[in-house]
Amino acid sequence: MQNIITGTGSYIPTLIKRNKDFLEYEFYTEKQQKLPNSNEIIIKKFKAITGIEERRYVEKDLKNSDIATFAAQKAIEKANINPEELDYIILAQNFGDVRHGFTQCDMLPSIAARVKHNLKIKNNNCVAYDVVFGCPGWIQGVIQADAFIKAGLAKKCLIIGAETLSRVVDPFDRDSMIYSDGAGACILEANEGQERGIISFASQSFTLEEAYFLFYGSSYNPNETQTTNYIKMHGRKIYEFALTNVPIAMKTALDKSTINISQIKKILIHQANEKMDEAIIQRFYELYNMEAPEGIMPMSIHKLGNSSVATVPTLFDLILNDKIENHKINAGDYILLASVGAGMNINAIVYQY
Amino acid sequence: MQNIITGTGSYIPTLIKRNKDFLEYEFYTEKQQKLPNSNEIIIKKFKAITGIEERRYVEKDLKNSDIATFAAQKAIEKANINPEELDYIILAQNFGDVRHGFTQCDMLPSIAARVKHNLKIKNNNCVAYDVVFGCPGWIQGVIQADAFIKAGLAKKCLIIGAETLSRVVDPFDRDSMIYSDGAGACILEANEGQERGIISFASQSFTLEEAYFLFYGSSYNPNETQTTNYIKMHGRKIYEFALTNVPIAMKTALDKSTINISQIKKILIHQANEKMDEAIIQRFYELYNMEAPEGIMPMSIHKLGNSSVATVPTLFDLILNDKIENHKINAGDYILLASVGAGMNINAIVYQY
Repeated sequence: MQNIITGTGSYIPTLIKRNKDFLEYEFYTEKQQKLPNSNEIIIKKFKAITGIEERRYVEKDLKNSDIATFAAQKAIEKANINPEELDYIILAQNFGDVRHGFTQCDMLPSIAARVKHNLKIKNNNCVAYDVVFGCPGWIQGVIQADAFIKAGLAKKCLIIGAETLSRVVDPFDRDSMIYSDGAGACILEANEGQERGIISFASQSFTLEEAYFLFYGSSYNPNETQTTNYIKMHGRKIYEFALTNVPIAMKTALDKSTINISQIKKILIHQANEKMDEAIIQRFYELYNMEAPEGIMPMSIHKLGNSSVATVPTLFDLILNDKIENHKINAGDYILLASVGAGMNINAIVYQY
Repeated sequence: MQNIITGTGSYIPTLIKRNKDFLEYEFYTEKQQKLPNSNEIIIKKFKAITGIEERRYVEKDLKNSDIATFAAQKAIEKANINPEELDYIILAQNFGDVRHGFTQCDMLPSIAARVKHNLKIKNNNCVAYDVVFGCPGWIQGVIQADAFIKAGLAKKCLIIGAETLSRVVDPFDRDSMIYSDGAGACILEANEGQERGIISFASQSFTLEEAYFLFYGSSYNPNETQTTNYIKMHGRKIYEFALTNVPIAMKTALDKSTINISQIKKILIHQANEKMDEAIIQRFYELYNMEAPEGIMPMSIHKLGNSSVATVPTLFDLILNDKIENHKINAGDYILLASVGAGMNINAIVYQY
């Protein structure tokens, strides 16, 4: 039995933050020293590496649970199911709800409970919980839903990835330009005799040396009082880690299936950094002594940035809605979903659409 | 196939906070008005209802991930397994790591990843994630691990519940006297032909009217600037909700098994409030037209307070270690685990020891 995604949905926040909007920022090093280059040069280099031209932030009055609800509503509509039939709502997040102008993460109650409340679902047997697994949280939620269906606990699950990183970035850290806000969702259902769906997957946590490659740390601003933490990363270490380990995890997932690499039509990878993502795909094909096919990797990072758990479901939804130029996923196509992020966690799913 | 708990562990924080230590506090109503009664009377009433005489707080230098690690180490030792064999580390928490003197919840990376790091586990295929499900998070983690084993994803799982509520309480709210810190853990393993383990369970999320019965809200202190949130609850509503719904969920779990209620030897219920827990047990037996047997409900709340996700695994571990007077669990005994909390979530497991 294979479980299938019967609907996807996403929410693209409305505030566009362009690279040039960072021109007046003051960027410091982690040692709180002013960066020597001008912001023009910093931003130019940033764009060359990450591919990011602009990113999206949520409006002031919205919280993470709100945008998660918007994405969920679209996925439910697309799957054409009655939300009262849902057995599980699994919500991947890493910072809960952070209100505009505040610094605390709020997940009492869980963001999944808030979404279920917002959706006005009456069925008390629909279990709502959050999963914290870094950027790969949404894919991990799908893996968990797949297991619950296989174990007989569920037939229909809603899996959402939602994050408002604009609320946890340090404006004095140039890495903050990477991060954005967004929400993506899907409905996973028990397969009624169809020969498609989730075929195989891989999932890993690297914590021995890597646990704090992404962390919550104090501002680079030398004048800040150091009582507030922000999302921080050791970019170089993450880059090397991802390049070494993500292709292997993707291969593990693929090798568990009976699918040949040449049958894979699209790879939807976490939109973390364009150069890194390209290098990962190249290495992945090198493991099979092949070159990466042209057009294998659709990207949304240029306009949407890195919205953590939201990138993969959002990209999936955009492709299915013909909103990523020159990229289509057709019935029967084999695709690969993959992600890497805080933990450090890595996962991948082989899926037949 | 039934999966079995092969080891338990807990950590009891070392700082004892007695009821009399609150005598000098200033308690206000949610409308920020001074409570009319003296603290002597407030504390006397508090003890009469909740049963709490004292509670435990962690030392200043400890975080939630530290005490989670201590409990995990004991469970691993008790189960006599090599931690490198673990397939999953599931950590239930609701506030991440909160450092002493700080107000932000930190779960970047997840608390599960921190525990895995602390345990020095090298196996990258051991997947570590956090589950956010209110106080019932630890029982829910056990239900998830059970599903992963049934679905073929895992053979050995470590499930931890850890919380440091002392870091998120409002000292101007008398409800704060309820909360404490603690960590409990267990190892769940695929059963090798044994006729015991997890028999059945129930799990629910009530969000339509109940989602914000427990919430993150501002201080009752009229002089506070309202930028910091604390754990808050609508106690009366929770009491009525729990009394109505927890007995039914427990019955749902029991009715899914072939066990007769008269075979249940112990009920390990979330240590939320002694009078509420007693009333729940009474109503549960009333559903079967019976009276609650004497000694069915071991309690730890008098000395340990309500440590959220940690109460059930800690109570379980204390009984197995002969640390709860007049309560024993013997091989073959049928027991019921049950919890209720933020979400509002309820769950229950029927287990044969």
